[in-house]
Amino acid sequence: MNETIKSILGRRSVKEYRPEQIKAEELEMILLAGRYAPSGMNRQPWLFVVIQNKDELIKIKETLQKNMPAPPGGGRRPHLLETAPTLIIVFGQDGASTTIHDCTLAMGNMMIAAASLGIGSNWIHAVVKDLFLFEEGKALKKEWGVSDEYIPYAAAVFGYQAKEPMYRPPRKEGVVKIIS
Amino acid sequence: MNETIKSILGRRSVKEYRPEQIKAEELEMILLAGRYAPSGMNRQPWLFVVIQNKDELIKIKETLQKNMPAPPGGGRRPHLLETAPTLIIVFGQDGASTTIHDCTLAMGNMMIAAASLGIGSNWIHAVVKDLFLFEEGKALKKEWGVSDEYIPYAAAVFGYQAKEPMYRPPRKEGVVKIIS
Repeated sequence: MNETIKSILGRRSVKEYRPEQIKAEELEMILLAGRYAPSGMNRQPWLFVVIQNKDELIKIKETLQKNMPAPPGGGRRPHLLETAPTLIIVFGQDGASTTIHDCTLAMGNMMIAAASLGIGSNWIHAVVKDLFLFEEGKALKKEWGVSDEYIPYAAAVFGYQAKEPMYRPPRKEGVVKIIS
Repeated sequence: MNETIKSILGRRSVKEYRPEQIKAEELEMILLAGRYAPSGMNRQPWLFVVIQNKDELIKIKETLQKNMPAPPGGGRRPHLLETAPTLIIVFGQDGASTTIHDCTLAMGNMMIAAASLGIGSNWIHAVVKDLFLFEEGKALKKEWGVSDEYIPYAAAVFGYQAKEPMYRPPRKEGVVKIIS
């Protein structure tokens, strides 16, 4: 098995992060991997917003928690936006049915590149689906200089993992049909 | 730069394929990579349909060409569905807003894994967006035993590339904002 496939199979959704920031040259490599995703008609409709400011990350977390119901069972675990040092949001320029795929593929590339560098990641769907529906989220988007034509299509936190995830969810069987 | 990042940056959208089929063990590895994508709440909502039957591939190509306008400028190049030996469609079980992302990430994993094995690929969006709107496409889906709850979210052809793609589209600049 080659190194690339090992990185793909070895990638995990990481829930516990060390506090230190990832290195600038690692971030640069991760973003480069994102920019090399395929895109419909080669439009490259993406805009990568990288949030590494602790106050902004906490503001995002609080906006989501204030506006959304607590998870079933009550008490919340520390949120990944509190513990992971970097959040990357891929916004896509609206206007083609491929944009959601392009931005998602860009994030996939970044998660695999990160894994290959020993950096964990975890998709944060509430940032894609909910954050920018709220006034606080709209204000952040404006503050970041992201214009209205850009829609959030992918979001994930990145950081060095604090410890090896304990549990590897088994892969579903019976999900392939071959028509030969 | 490590091997994984080299595979990611080296992946190309391949337009010319050799006729021979990819090896069964390579297909197996590609599918395994797809199944190791992250998914919302670990639902793994995917179903991978691999079409390697020449008649079915031509039927798909003809359905698309019959029902869709010719490209601007008239004459068509040989369609990738005529020349590439394998088409993989990732269907997703409807019911969560993450499903489109999950299936797209699975396809991204497969395209990178393929690249690492020297196998080219190319996303075919008409299969995602159009094919199953037509009667012929609906009949194929039924024939493959794919139930109505499954929606097509990603599709790409795979095969050995006939020659190195000539042109490497440059990557867009100015697509990163860092909030530190």
